[in-house]
Amino acid sequence: MAEMKRQMSLNCFLFGMGHHEAAWRFRDADPQQMMDIKYFQRLAQIAEEAKFDSVFLADGLSGGKSFSNFFEPLTFLSSIASVTKHIGLIGTVSTTYTEPYNLARYFASLDYISKGRAGWNIVTTGSEDAAYNFNKNSHLEHVKRYERANEFLEVTTALWDSWEDEALTFDKSSGDFADSSKIREIHHVGPAFQVKGPLNIPRSPQGYPVLVQAGSSPSGREFGARFAEVIYTMQSNIEEARQFYKDVKARLLKYGRSGDQMKILPGVAVILGETESEAREKEQELNALINPEIGLRRLSALTGVDMFSYPLDGPMPELPDAEQINGQRTKYKIFVDLAKRENLTIRQLLHRTAAGRGDFTIVGTAAQVADQLEEWFLTRACDGFNIMPPYFPGGLEEFSQKVIPELQRRGLFRTEYTGSTLRENLGLSRPVNQFAAAVAER
Amino acid sequence: MAEMKRQMSLNCFLFGMGHHEAAWRFRDADPQQMMDIKYFQRLAQIAEEAKFDSVFLADGLSGGKSFSNFFEPLTFLSSIASVTKHIGLIGTVSTTYTEPYNLARYFASLDYISKGRAGWNIVTTGSEDAAYNFNKNSHLEHVKRYERANEFLEVTTALWDSWEDEALTFDKSSGDFADSSKIREIHHVGPAFQVKGPLNIPRSPQGYPVLVQAGSSPSGREFGARFAEVIYTMQSNIEEARQFYKDVKARLLKYGRSGDQMKILPGVAVILGETESEAREKEQELNALINPEIGLRRLSALTGVDMFSYPLDGPMPELPDAEQINGQRTKYKIFVDLAKRENLTIRQLLHRTAAGRGDFTIVGTAAQVADQLEEWFLTRACDGFNIMPPYFPGGLEEFSQKVIPELQRRGLFRTEYTGSTLRENLGLSRPVNQFAAAVAER
Repeated sequence: MAEMKRQMSLNCFLFGMGHHEAAWRFRDADPQQMMDIKYFQRLAQIAEEAKFDSVFLADGLSGGKSFSNFFEPLTFLSSIASVTKHIGLIGTVSTTYTEPYNLARYFASLDYISKGRAGWNIVTTGSEDAAYNFNKNSHLEHVKRYERANEFLEVTTALWDSWEDEALTFDKSSGDFADSSKIREIHHVGPAFQVKGPLNIPRSPQGYPVLVQAGSSPSGREFGARFAEVIYTMQSNIEEARQFYKDVKARLLKYGRSGDQMKILPGVAVILGETESEAREKEQELNALINPEIGLRRLSALTGVDMFSYPLDGPMPELPDAEQINGQRTKYKIFVDLAKRENLTIRQLLHRTAAGRGDFTIVGTAAQVADQLEEWFLTRACDGFNIMPPYFPGGLEEFSQKVIPELQRRGLFRTEYTGSTLRENLGLSRPVNQFAAAVAER
Repeated sequence: MAEMKRQMSLNCFLFGMGHHEAAWRFRDADPQQMMDIKYFQRLAQIAEEAKFDSVFLADGLSGGKSFSNFFEPLTFLSSIASVTKHIGLIGTVSTTYTEPYNLARYFASLDYISKGRAGWNIVTTGSEDAAYNFNKNSHLEHVKRYERANEFLEVTTALWDSWEDEALTFDKSSGDFADSSKIREIHHVGPAFQVKGPLNIPRSPQGYPVLVQAGSSPSGREFGARFAEVIYTMQSNIEEARQFYKDVKARLLKYGRSGDQMKILPGVAVILGETESEAREKEQELNALINPEIGLRRLSALTGVDMFSYPLDGPMPELPDAEQINGQRTKYKIFVDLAKRENLTIRQLLHRTAAGRGDFTIVGTAAQVADQLEEWFLTRACDGFNIMPPYFPGGLEEFSQKVIPELQRRGLFRTEYTGSTLRENLGLSRPVNQFAAAVAER
């Protein structure tokens, strides 16, 4: 029997009217749809029709004067679950501003609702503004946030294992509904959390949600190597992506994990045209719609420097060292490097990063896009991609109708869902129950 | 034009396989369905077909060795929203174990997802066991919990008002998506919370979710009078229900609120038969299925007394004063009074409270049930009911097919939904935005 060819995992990153900053102003876009769940349900259905592994909703815990998603991920994905059957549902929730007992319940419930399609994108929330919404005068330092995140995952994975798979018996004749020897208190006591358990939801179809993570700092990579099953990452070129891939996969050994139990998916913004020049024109059309004020606000937040006080068509000002950034350090580095390398003005940097906000951007025909995705995939720069359509629904439809069939022809992507859970479709194993395994070893 | 006749509000209280403790063992019940969202979606659709105002999911933050609902309310209701159009979606969330910024987002998002059908049942979580899952060695005292709840509501209502209804402009030509003068930071600083705001979700269709509450203690009633628009209450007889109704409505004046802006809905467990004796037989059939161990565990938790150390067919032991109960005090009083008044053995008390767990229980024909509901409603013991079918789906189907048409014939209940939001169907006004109103007054 021939070994099955390695295939890409593709995630569809949902984001307002599209990932390009000016998507909501593009052609016939109707931004009112951003408040309408039916619009997003339709996007998820288009992605499912195209056999994407999953849809993903990012999140933030502050803001209001800029916008991306107005829906909160857990409620949003639960609603999407009802109108889809196969596609995975990945949502961002912060370990810094939730309690592990609540979070474990949200995702166990979503995993039941979706019959095994839940994924959790674990973030530690680097934004100072979020702290002000959660009783803090300043936010937790980078390292402290990851200490908390590590303990948070110890607690939630224990809670998800607090029921064995076979704990529910529902014995109508005896009146016993569960085998109580298979439901355990966890008695976690640590620096950040004390949690007795058990969870009040039985072990869910996937055991627990697929654990997704995007931190690229050393503590982020170490956390990812310990827990993450999918890594979203921002990579500006194939060489750096290959280095990242190698580095992160090598770290798995230390935690007794194998390389195939983690999928690394860089973000890719794709602007498609029938010809390359049509694609370039589309990019220019989108960039012409940018409101510099929004871009400057975002750049100021990223850098901690007030960009409004510098001329838009002048050079980038001197910027602090990356180590001083307590937030999105990796993104910061990518922006700074790009501006330096290509000697960009502030406006040029805004344009260059408008489609992908720092993620790798491909502008071209379906074949050109497929060529690049194939090269990244086959040379182990990644295991697939986090696809960021510049505008919805058109950008997703075009990718689905043109790029995906091309990838399928090349044998690089599935033509049918083969698994019934997100784990199965991603080729990830269902986690062994830590408590049941401990008993079995005795 | 004739004044419209006052009509009942009816809520359908979803609860596992039914409210009777032994529902999951009853006849052809399939308890595996409790893990299947499609089962609950169908229940919500039956309730919507019958024109119930809302479905309601209770919640707890501990447990595991007993069961009721395995779904978490916010994810559950978001999923139900996708397969229904009119019915309100009310979920329990605790103010003691969540953060106001998170909670405000969950419900704003659910209100968008459901297009204005969200309701929040506000609880303060009296259970000691929940505290152990949230980093506490003991739980907050009753009074402290309500102090926190009051401040929690001040914060969440301010967050929900932090965007004016007209804040979003989506001006494609200028590139401005919002009128930033209509989006405000709230700068809340109080003993329990510091929250800067604004929320990162615009003001939702209902302004904010319908606020529901069930506390019956003096601090609970005062909190309800200040904030609650719907009151769930446990009343064991019509006289006490009338006193409660009068007391709570009188408290509204102090907060400048009118009586019609609060709906008081006692819980009612209804066991129906074609004849009264058939209904009684059904009750006995259900009671014969009770596993006394589960009842004793529940009774021990309620009273703080180990009921396993007393003979099941002997009298109730001496019990502490209600004031010593830091938990469900009202329910405790009802149980103790009932046992004393009717001189019940422990087993008899378990049987008498098995269907409604302390809530008023009616056993009889559809006409008998309608008579009692009508009397309670017309004599101002309530504004409607929180209906607790003893078993699902049968108990809900029978109520819908037999009692509701009888109430409709008497002009006591709607025959069609007239509003498009839960607020409109309940006859509650949409809240005025506190910040916009303050500006208008200047």
